[in-house]
Amino acid sequence: MVDASAQAVGKREAGYRAADMVADGMVVGLGTGSTVFFAMERLAARIREGLVITGIPTSFQTAIRARGCGIPLATLNDYPVIDLAIDGADQVDPGFALIKGRGAAQTQEKCVAFAAKSLVIVADPSKLTRKLDAVVPIEVLSSAYVPVIRYLKTIGGVPVLREGIKKDGPVITDNGNMVIDCGFGTIGDPTALDIHLSSIPGVVTCGLFTTFADKTTVVVGDSNGCQVLSRNGQFPL
Amino acid sequence: MVDASAQAVGKREAGYRAADMVADGMVVGLGTGSTVFFAMERLAARIREGLVITGIPTSFQTAIRARGCGIPLATLNDYPVIDLAIDGADQVDPGFALIKGRGAAQTQEKCVAFAAKSLVIVADPSKLTRKLDAVVPIEVLSSAYVPVIRYLKTIGGVPVLREGIKKDGPVITDNGNMVIDCGFGTIGDPTALDIHLSSIPGVVTCGLFTTFADKTTVVVGDSNGCQVLSRNGQFPL
Repeated sequence: MVDASAQAVGKREAGYRAADMVADGMVVGLGTGSTVFFAMERLAARIREGLVITGIPTSFQTAIRARGCGIPLATLNDYPVIDLAIDGADQVDPGFALIKGRGAAQTQEKCVAFAAKSLVIVADPSKLTRKLDAVVPIEVLSSAYVPVIRYLKTIGGVPVLREGIKKDGPVITDNGNMVIDCGFGTIGDPTALDIHLSSIPGVVTCGLFTTFADKTTVVVGDSNGCQVLSRNGQFPL
Repeated sequence: MVDASAQAVGKREAGYRAADMVADGMVVGLGTGSTVFFAMERLAARIREGLVITGIPTSFQTAIRARGCGIPLATLNDYPVIDLAIDGADQVDPGFALIKGRGAAQTQEKCVAFAAKSLVIVADPSKLTRKLDAVVPIEVLSSAYVPVIRYLKTIGGVPVLREGIKKDGPVITDNGNMVIDCGFGTIGDPTALDIHLSSIPGVVTCGLFTTFADKTTVVVGDSNGCQVLSRNGQFPL
């Protein structure tokens, strides 16, 4: 059982640490989710003290928050090379393969991660796992959700079309598509599954992030402070 | 130099032959393009004579034409298994790898081809090639067209954002996205390139079709009639 307030403290620790890795003049990818918002809170404070950055948001939610706290924004098309991106994850394994997409923002998050020279993943300890086994969020064209679900079952997946709350019917992403949450049990080969899912016609993006590990740093925060992990190094589990 | 009227005769021959492969009660994928429209013309005539089929269109254009000529339609979500799909191609190689997407409909065409038990490609001889070397149309999210173009250049591609005619600025697909036409010269390994392009964040679908060859039949028509080719068999070049 995770103590919710201790978890929030850890998220803030990690978010603030990540924000302090940002240098003046950087183009900064802004992920989506509660831990990233702590990083944005800290970035906003640094901007008030004179830091100059350009933020590239990965979702409508992040853009709205950034505007609210005074972080200047531009688009990935304006800045196709990002110095440093800060984002969260649903799960992180010791090789820094990730599952992302609980917030349905994985498509733009993946575009930003791809364009980034450096990716800082902020997390609380509950996100760390020896083996990825969470559901994989898959963004899919609404015109093809049934054949994609059908196919996912044939490869051993347990797919569920994500339903909205405060919206009748399926969740619709910022891109106008649907999301399938697909369980695969423990994922033996995340890279192969990432490539396989990405190649299914009708799939826009899968939530497995397996090609960014070389440029990834993971910052894990708890109520005692935070740790910067190295890939395949010590893993506090 | 191809004689345009001879080419049209060949397209009609191929389209009609494909339409005659359709049996009563089938769910039929309806591709996009001039040769497919000949197949639809023939299907409509057969429907007037009593044939019962359900058409699954791959584009707004095909749906509009099908409604105009009396072919009953449903969606891929209603019928996620298609008995036979008829479609055209920009290029076909002897192993039945294809390049598609000149009409910007490759995403839904790929979804339908994926869902089909059998894929009949209708073509005129100008579409046959020993080695695929046409531009590969790539449907891309408008929010990521610049980083995708940038990446395609790093892997040796020559990408051009497709511009509209009768619409200012870029072509927008039926799915609301953009199209990049990317030259790669002669494509040595179409399957590897299909997987690579499909995995680029921001790419929705690439126009290389390399995983359907086992279920593909190619019908090539010219002014002397038409031929049904077998994979890796005789190739009239």
